[in-house]
Amino acid sequence: MGNSTMLHPDRLFPEDPRTRDIARELYGSVRSLPIISPHGHTDPAWFAENKPFGNPAELLITPDHYVFRMLYSQGITLNQLGISGTSDSRKPMPDPRTVWRLFASNYHLFRATPSRIWLDHVFFEIFDFDEPLSGDTSDKYFDRIQALLDTEEFLPRHLFDKFNIELLATTESPLDELPHHNTIIASDWDGRVITTFRPDPVTDPEFEGFSTNVTLLGELTGRDTASFPEYLAALQDRRQYFQARGATATDHGNPTASTADLSPSESEHLFHKILTGDFSPLEAESFRAQMLTEMAKMSLEDGLIMQIHPGSYRNHNRWLFEQYGRDKGADIPRQTEYVAALKPLLDRYGNEPNLSIILFTLDETAYSRELAPLAGHYPVLKLGPAWWFHDSPEGMRRYREQTIETAGIYNTVGFNDDTRAFLSIPARHDMSRRIDCGFLAKLIAEHRMTENEGFEVAEAFAYSLAKEAYKL
Amino acid sequence: MGNSTMLHPDRLFPEDPRTRDIARELYGSVRSLPIISPHGHTDPAWFAENKPFGNPAELLITPDHYVFRMLYSQGITLNQLGISGTSDSRKPMPDPRTVWRLFASNYHLFRATPSRIWLDHVFFEIFDFDEPLSGDTSDKYFDRIQALLDTEEFLPRHLFDKFNIELLATTESPLDELPHHNTIIASDWDGRVITTFRPDPVTDPEFEGFSTNVTLLGELTGRDTASFPEYLAALQDRRQYFQARGATATDHGNPTASTADLSPSESEHLFHKILTGDFSPLEAESFRAQMLTEMAKMSLEDGLIMQIHPGSYRNHNRWLFEQYGRDKGADIPRQTEYVAALKPLLDRYGNEPNLSIILFTLDETAYSRELAPLAGHYPVLKLGPAWWFHDSPEGMRRYREQTIETAGIYNTVGFNDDTRAFLSIPARHDMSRRIDCGFLAKLIAEHRMTENEGFEVAEAFAYSLAKEAYKL
Amino acid sequence: MGNSTMLHPDRLFPEDPRTRDIARELYGSVRSLPIISPHGHTDPAWFAENKPFGNPAELLITPDHYVFRMLYSQGITLNQLGISGTSDSRKPMPDPRTVWRLFASNYHLFRATPSRIWLDHVFFEIFDFDEPLSGDTSDKYFDRIQALLDTEEFLPRHLFDKFNIELLATTESPLDELPHHNTIIASDWDGRVITTFRPDPVTDPEFEGFSTNVTLLGELTGRDTASFPEYLAALQDRRQYFQARGATATDHGNPTASTADLSPSESEHLFHKILTGDFSPLEAESFRAQMLTEMAKMSLEDGLIMQIHPGSYRNHNRWLFEQYGRDKGADIPRQTEYVAALKPLLDRYGNEPNLSIILFTLDETAYSRELAPLAGHYPVLKLGPAWWFHDSPEGMRRYREQTIETAGIYNTVGFNDDTRAFLSIPARHDMSRRIDCGFLAKLIAEHRMTENEGFEVAEAFAYSLAKEAYKL
Repeated sequence: MGNSTMLHPDRLFPEDPRTRDIARELYGSVRSLPIISPHGHTDPAWFAENKPFGNPAELLITPDHYVFRMLYSQGITLNQLGISGTSDSRKPMPDPRTVWRLFASNYHLFRATPSRIWLDHVFFEIFDFDEPLSGDTSDKYFDRIQALLDTEEFLPRHLFDKFNIELLATTESPLDELPHHNTIIASDWDGRVITTFRPDPVTDPEFEGFSTNVTLLGELTGRDTASFPEYLAALQDRRQYFQARGATATDHGNPTASTADLSPSESEHLFHKILTGDFSPLEAESFRAQMLTEMAKMSLEDGLIMQIHPGSYRNHNRWLFEQYGRDKGADIPRQTEYVAALKPLLDRYGNEPNLSIILFTLDETAYSRELAPLAGHYPVLKLGPAWWFHDSPEGMRRYREQTIETAGIYNTVGFNDDTRAFLSIPARHDMSRRIDCGFLAKLIAEHRMTENEGFEVAEAFAYSLAKEAYKL
Repeated sequence: MGNSTMLHPDRLFPEDPRTRDIARELYGSVRSLPIISPHGHTDPAWFAENKPFGNPAELLITPDHYVFRMLYSQGITLNQLGISGTSDSRKPMPDPRTVWRLFASNYHLFRATPSRIWLDHVFFEIFDFDEPLSGDTSDKYFDRIQALLDTEEFLPRHLFDKFNIELLATTESPLDELPHHNTIIASDWDGRVITTFRPDPVTDPEFEGFSTNVTLLGELTGRDTASFPEYLAALQDRRQYFQARGATATDHGNPTASTADLSPSESEHLFHKILTGDFSPLEAESFRAQMLTEMAKMSLEDGLIMQIHPGSYRNHNRWLFEQYGRDKGADIPRQTEYVAALKPLLDRYGNEPNLSIILFTLDETAYSRELAPLAGHYPVLKLGPAWWFHDSPEGMRRYREQTIETAGIYNTVGFNDDTRAFLSIPARHDMSRRIDCGFLAKLIAEHRMTENEGFEVAEAFAYSLAKEAYKL
Repeated sequence: MGNSTMLHPDRLFPEDPRTRDIARELYGSVRSLPIISPHGHTDPAWFAENKPFGNPAELLITPDHYVFRMLYSQGITLNQLGISGTSDSRKPMPDPRTVWRLFASNYHLFRATPSRIWLDHVFFEIFDFDEPLSGDTSDKYFDRIQALLDTEEFLPRHLFDKFNIELLATTESPLDELPHHNTIIASDWDGRVITTFRPDPVTDPEFEGFSTNVTLLGELTGRDTASFPEYLAALQDRRQYFQARGATATDHGNPTASTADLSPSESEHLFHKILTGDFSPLEAESFRAQMLTEMAKMSLEDGLIMQIHPGSYRNHNRWLFEQYGRDKGADIPRQTEYVAALKPLLDRYGNEPNLSIILFTLDETAYSRELAPLAGHYPVLKLGPAWWFHDSPEGMRRYREQTIETAGIYNTVGFNDDTRAFLSIPARHDMSRRIDCGFLAKLIAEHRMTENEGFEVAEAFAYSLAKEAYKL
């Protein structure tokens, strides 16, 4: 990687000099391990088409809701950032250089946030800058990044190899034909980009276009999805389709962790009610809950790992959603209950040796109270890493400190970057490795773990736990 | 300030020597900045009348519920502390020296509490003691404090200047005529003591004397407050009255963060129901919720900053409340939900460029889960400091660690002392500056922030964020 | 104790060298203090009969749900660990050496858990091993432990004395005749093993065999427990019986902290409904809630300390419960509310000078929000230590950091080991003393407490707070 003078080699390590020495040693043993990225949201078209990325603003600002939400919170409009909404349609869009200047001159807003760490990593390690971004250096940054994006070395596949990515998982809807994954598989490039089966568009009655989606699912599979058994069979077909293209996991983003265990006739009745479009919020919740249990049943058969990440109030800002649509930085976490919510599914499948469910949370209060005790007991449960808002130095430390003592190390699954921002992937994995090595260094410094064990666990956190948990 | 030998110059800084060195440097750059105290509950009469404070017990024990709640929890009665209740009326009151002795001989109860830090600061820095308070030194303390209180140097205005207070906000009811603020404004003293508009007595149907208060509001403004539009207009009149005397903010202490967006006719109907006195707890909650939204609307017009600090179960101890009244150390925090609660208000006004709402919490679980994500997205929202029970070294650290990464630095508003205890103001601001500099020193030591940035942010935390957020 | 080369003398102390020096000094002053164990679940038969413990697996694995839950979570069945379930009845049971090998070869699963710290303490300090447990050393471990268990030195009473236990409390049902405690009292051994009154089997309508238990209670006391006043009188009789055998406390493990204050006729009516067996979950909850208040009333009369530890969802894993019964590592914490829940009891008895109630929690979010403010105000309330899943280095640190500033030191009650694993008692108290000394060292290093105070408080945490709180 870059020959940066700006990133301190000891960044993110603990303050205490002796502990820092241990952290540095541990990190030295894992820093060059390949990246396993088993859960994320990059665009497979990049790797299928291998075209140059557009411009600095389009690459680093407009697709990254971490970045534009912070600017928005301080009074900068989305229109000023080059994002167009319904009522902006007749306003002129700013050119990318102007957007970049606005971002650069407000770069101080990111102080002490993880975005700042990721962006600086990108700037100093990938683009080899040697002075910080600011209003003064804005144009210099813009020009250099633009120039590099147009070179061979910055084509997506080239970066993928340069980043030492062993495997990258993307996330697609069951309605997706996976053309880009097909292209990648058929190509002579050996990068492993696999898909993940995310059925929310056809299992969540409150998803936009749900009933149309169910119809499309029928068309795709040649099944009559107006029948519940055929609807389930169609989902199984699509799982197989995804699996044949490398998928090892499913992904479920329900608002809550609720599961249900309805009788077949109750499920069928509920499904027909839902299909009419005339259902209550409670019925929608009940259907989503039942579908998680149905998905567990299918996983038991086909072996796909289940990922459940509840707790986000999506598109909380009504006006912004109406004007600009989904994913504009207005998803807000809520309290999330797991113990009663998961019981119906666990009563049915909690002790199955061949099922594996990875739980995530946006509600840190569940770490030590619910999630670590659940993962530390049930054979089917494992605990996913600090997620989304908690994917930060302090967030990751709290995650380790609040889960490991009860869940144990081997009921966790390493790190996920969960990102749309391709260039931030090395930065995020590097941060996670540094924080985890710092955590282990503290255990060693306090004589709670031997140094030999520390090296083994550092490797597990950085690489093998994810590889094993996702069967990669 | 005092030439104390008891307060260590490095107190409250991080343990690690190198990090401590950074903290000391940062603190050196902010320790002498003027104090901005934009939210508190001192008595404006002190500064209007400028009379000497009474005696040590009356100054430091009886008005400070942090102090007497701890003594009470260990079996010391309020009567023994010189606080009189209904059934104490025929008991003799202890003299101040006896009260002080009881306090002094139980001073060990405050070990490791913030009260101890504040009190020691007062003793060693303001009263220049050179030995700790204890049963043995009780009389020496009493006599020296008493003697000093009778000097010119310890008159309220003199202390205000000595403390380097640039601005102090008090909090008053809309029914208050603000005679003391008028006196201060008319005086030749140039200390800035402004008021804050706290409408709870006339907007919370469950406040003692609510309907009488609404009638008084009508009398004060010459409005017929039995009409809802006139009631709202009367509130606007009082806001203007407060604003004309320096107020820049309002303050709302509802039990929950609930807001509502009722139609005008629903609001009016509810108001009339409330005025009859025959209403359910749910209707009271609904009215408070609607009034927050009405207040936001008025703030949009007159520019007053809104402060919302929900989550306290007031006067939880029934017997104590019946005997001794409000504010006797028995307010207990409860879980507080913000995401659904604020949505009605935010749906209406969340994207307004000219509205500013500062949120506080007594429920730390909301920091990283709800408040930081909300403040890190909505242009109208900012996050208030660690409040009340969390206004302590560990509490402040958790606040910074759990909010800054997601909310960012510039969506927070510096420090509020929120105190009735005038003498503790320098102690509290000093503690906050020390803890914040320690927090920044750790970021710098871990290379998450440069030292130059650290100095800028230390100044912002100590001074300018509050000044800007409250338009001072 | 043992002459171990494996346990580092500085283990669990803070990393910073100067703070560590202070911690070491503080710990030196408390490490040899006698053990007060006022709350636990060891078997009094051990000390009554003083027979040798069986074999290593039976001693250290099968009775310890911390240990087997972790193995179970990783796919090892209870049958493989020598625990027999309904459907295992025809399977052969593995011999203890085989069970021990399975445990030894999976010992890495306990890395970074408190079980590992306790077990290593047992291995290195009590059994004097000088190499770590692993698959390779499994047989060596098994043989040496087995050989030692057969010696005089490892008989229960001998270990009790060797461990320097001043007092050990066990926990029994009101239906227990306390034969073992009687034997111990009548013996010439001077070890103090007292009982604790745990009425759940006769006060919780959802306890297995509740109505039979109430009948048995009547038979034991010669009271007609079909009458509510006689039922209450029978409970008072049993409390006296327990008190006569040394009990100083009661213990209540309700699912929630709910209390009630029903009228006598309402209580009586509810009791009769409950006795019919035809009651709703809400009625069961209401009865438990009322019984807590009744118990508080009895405590006011007989002086027994009340312990309330709510918040566990018992036997969450249905299949495991049906196959293997209670206490198989599947108790999962849930969110626990205290402020509204305790109000009925506190409204009635919250200000009584002669009542003392110790509160525990499995929900850490209640520490700073509810429990510390409650304990820091109410004369009757004290706060129990970090409990169960939180009885770990990080768990104990969070407990101190989140409670002491608001509750104060003297509203807490020192340490409880709460264990069934007799050999782990010295390990657990040692861990607690180390962590507490580290906590105090940090306060001293940050100049929030003087070193002299630190020594006093270290002694209080390790010994006298428990002794005073439980009237021992």
